[in-house]
Amino acid sequence: VTKTEQPERLFDDIGKHRFDMMVDGVFAIAMTLLVLDLRIPEHIRGPDLLASLVEMVPKFVTYGMAFCTLGVIWIGDMICTRPFRRVDLPHMILNVVALLFVALIPFTSGLMGSYPDNSIAVGVYGINIFVVVLMYAISMTRVPGRLCSHTMDLLFVKDATSLIWSFVIGAAAGPFIAIFSPRSAFYLNIGIVICGAVAFPVIVRRHHKRETIPSPLMPNKA
Amino acid sequence: VTKTEQPERLFDDIGKHRFDMMVDGVFAIAMTLLVLDLRIPEHIRGPDLLASLVEMVPKFVTYGMAFCTLGVIWIGDMICTRPFRRVDLPHMILNVVALLFVALIPFTSGLMGSYPDNSIAVGVYGINIFVVVLMYAISMTRVPGRLCSHTMDLLFVKDATSLIWSFVIGAAAGPFIAIFSPRSAFYLNIGIVICGAVAFPVIVRRHHKRETIPSPLMPNKA
Amino acid sequence: VTKTEQPERLFDDIGKHRFDMMVDGVFAIAMTLLVLDLRIPEHIRGPDLLASLVEMVPKFVTYGMAFCTLGVIWIGDMICTRPFRRVDLPHMILNVVALLFVALIPFTSGLMGSYPDNSIAVGVYGINIFVVVLMYAISMTRVPGRLCSHTMDLLFVKDATSLIWSFVIGAAAGPFIAIFSPRSAFYLNIGIVICGAVAFPVIVRRHHKRETIPSPLMPNKA
Amino acid sequence: VTKTEQPERLFDDIGKHRFDMMVDGVFAIAMTLLVLDLRIPEHIRGPDLLASLVEMVPKFVTYGMAFCTLGVIWIGDMICTRPFRRVDLPHMILNVVALLFVALIPFTSGLMGSYPDNSIAVGVYGINIFVVVLMYAISMTRVPGRLCSHTMDLLFVKDATSLIWSFVIGAAAGPFIAIFSPRSAFYLNIGIVICGAVAFPVIVRRHHKRETIPSPLMPNKA
Repeated sequence: VTKTEQPERLFDDIGKHRFDMMVDGVFAIAMTLLVLDLRIPEHIRGPDLLASLVEMVPKFVTYGMAFCTLGVIWIGDMICTRPFRRVDLPHMILNVVALLFVALIPFTSGLMGSYPDNSIAVGVYGINIFVVVLMYAISMTRVPGRLCSHTMDLLFVKDATSLIWSFVIGAAAGPFIAIFSPRSAFYLNIGIVICGAVAFPVIVRRHHKRETIPSPLMPNKA
Repeated sequence: VTKTEQPERLFDDIGKHRFDMMVDGVFAIAMTLLVLDLRIPEHIRGPDLLASLVEMVPKFVTYGMAFCTLGVIWIGDMICTRPFRRVDLPHMILNVVALLFVALIPFTSGLMGSYPDNSIAVGVYGINIFVVVLMYAISMTRVPGRLCSHTMDLLFVKDATSLIWSFVIGAAAGPFIAIFSPRSAFYLNIGIVICGAVAFPVIVRRHHKRETIPSPLMPNKA
Repeated sequence: VTKTEQPERLFDDIGKHRFDMMVDGVFAIAMTLLVLDLRIPEHIRGPDLLASLVEMVPKFVTYGMAFCTLGVIWIGDMICTRPFRRVDLPHMILNVVALLFVALIPFTSGLMGSYPDNSIAVGVYGINIFVVVLMYAISMTRVPGRLCSHTMDLLFVKDATSLIWSFVIGAAAGPFIAIFSPRSAFYLNIGIVICGAVAFPVIVRRHHKRETIPSPLMPNKA
Repeated sequence: VTKTEQPERLFDDIGKHRFDMMVDGVFAIAMTLLVLDLRIPEHIRGPDLLASLVEMVPKFVTYGMAFCTLGVIWIGDMICTRPFRRVDLPHMILNVVALLFVALIPFTSGLMGSYPDNSIAVGVYGINIFVVVLMYAISMTRVPGRLCSHTMDLLFVKDATSLIWSFVIGAAAGPFIAIFSPRSAFYLNIGIVICGAVAFPVIVRRHHKRETIPSPLMPNKA
């Protein structure tokens, strides 16, 4: 047993832990940098401040949406990668590419906040989200089973991967809809985030139920 | 015992650890981004530098206040969430919303620093702080007892939750006072931060005393 | 033994770990934000780029100095707080105040980089460094021995605290020297950073030597 | 045995863990700050947005290249420092200097993105990457074997160090090539990043193979 397990030794728990820090760092910073797009109105006389803040409403809405999008992707990442005890190099490289597009979100969401009714601005944001979700989908699909420690976890990974692929399809529609109606694409993006926030608890709960009913075919180790 | 505990397995210690990193990352970055609101005066001749720095005093005061506010909320978060051994999804989602408003503080505090005598600027900051504290209060109130590992910790969580709700009431007064007197609302905010820095040690100490006196009704496991 | 140790239970290892993340986060961000003060020269024709980069040399020097200062303080923090197994609330509050001034360094060093020959700019930076070192000195002096786990570590903490106080005295001279000669104060700051980078290894090595010679008075547990 | 091992006690696992956080923090922030160089085009009328985004293509390419460069260096750092169980002070100081140049990359890559056909801009970026790689090469070369826990790991460290030195030579060519042809230097940089992403998995796999074949000269402890 020790002989076959040794090859993975170099990328075990600690590697996963440090890689998590990389992912968490980029998400936390991208989320907090969103605020830099909210510029304080300058040289405004007292009573006009409310008016200039009201003008910024599309920027506030975009801020909230981009923050929640990043938050949901991050929670999804935490839930989906939890069963893995190790990371390998292709996984790391795929995720660096995903993070490259995660770190772009402060720019593309800022673009959308500045031009909320422009097809190109909303479309670029949609493409950005699509690429991020696609990268996660590919990353989850290729992760080999040997990185998991439990058989039950593999079933969960399979479910989660299917869920992410359905989000890929949803996110792919965004840029096309933006060509005809930027506003509809905007609402679609909000819808996808809400679906994500709802879908992950559902698959986790379903997985829990399955685990508590010991099947005669797959005996529980506990 | 193993059967009833299994359902939480997916969100145990490691999940808590990674979620803590998310919270810590956003707080650390929000606190450090506050400095970006302090712009270096440009094209100033030597002797005039002191005058232009003196002009920035409201900005420095706001910087200090926002930094301490975030610091006290963070310490409060660390103390309050320590007894929990696990996090569940509703807790994560509630906290992402809380972080959304935590990450807004560099903007709203910058607004207050630019317009320290403006009711709207001070009121917006007050609303921001109020929403953050409210989110933490809701998050602490709904956390189910099963996430705690010790009976004594539950008592502490109850005490801490009451304390946070009293801060919610205090913070709610801020925006109303700002309508009539921005300066009073500013001092109220400082007062709440000092109360927070004092109140948490007090409830921790009280909790410690209670724990060292083994009651005959609740036998200590140690 | 369990009775007297229980009161600290709430702020043990995990609390220290999360507090370390707070400290590390603020240092890492403050260090990386320094780069934002280096603005890319705009609308420059090809051959003039070298000239405009040469003009920026004081900014590069300041960047390097501020980065190394923060790096040395951070390494000092890591070395000095390593013997502690717990943190208590006064320690946390003192360190939040220290971090408030650590996070100010990108501003004050940027000020010094923009006005390298201005007494006020260099003096403000000197005061900033002085307050940071002072806060660490107070924080180390008041840390009660009960937070340490080994008798030998207490000796190390005592040595480290004396060292930090000597840096407080050195840093206090900076702002005064800046009044008469900003350039001398600049070199003093560089000198202090080099001393810090040299002094910490020296006391660690001395401490190691002491530990490897088991004294008859203080029997080694190992 | 305990006597000779004690001197390193002060800089063991926890020290390594905190130092990793420092490294990870600076990398994550430097990578995410790259996005700040992508400024949202202002006051553009709807149909002109695409044109102004197309104009930004060199900036997007630079963003992607700098992000991947930092990502590959970071993964390289994780892989190379994994065998070490401890860090010592010279290692920490060398790495702070490396991080100083890592944190400069958002500036130098932004410079290259603004002036992609300028020898000086591309040369400065090349020098920056060269210094970072050189610092890592020196840091890896001087790390004493006693910091490793396994004999096999020492062989891996030796291999990785040779690899990094070959990258030093490659990166050294960049600034010289930039004098004659900025575009070639740009492609060289991309080539080095791809080589890095390919070379690390190769030496890791080779190392794994070597480990699974127990040699009669170096008996495996497992």
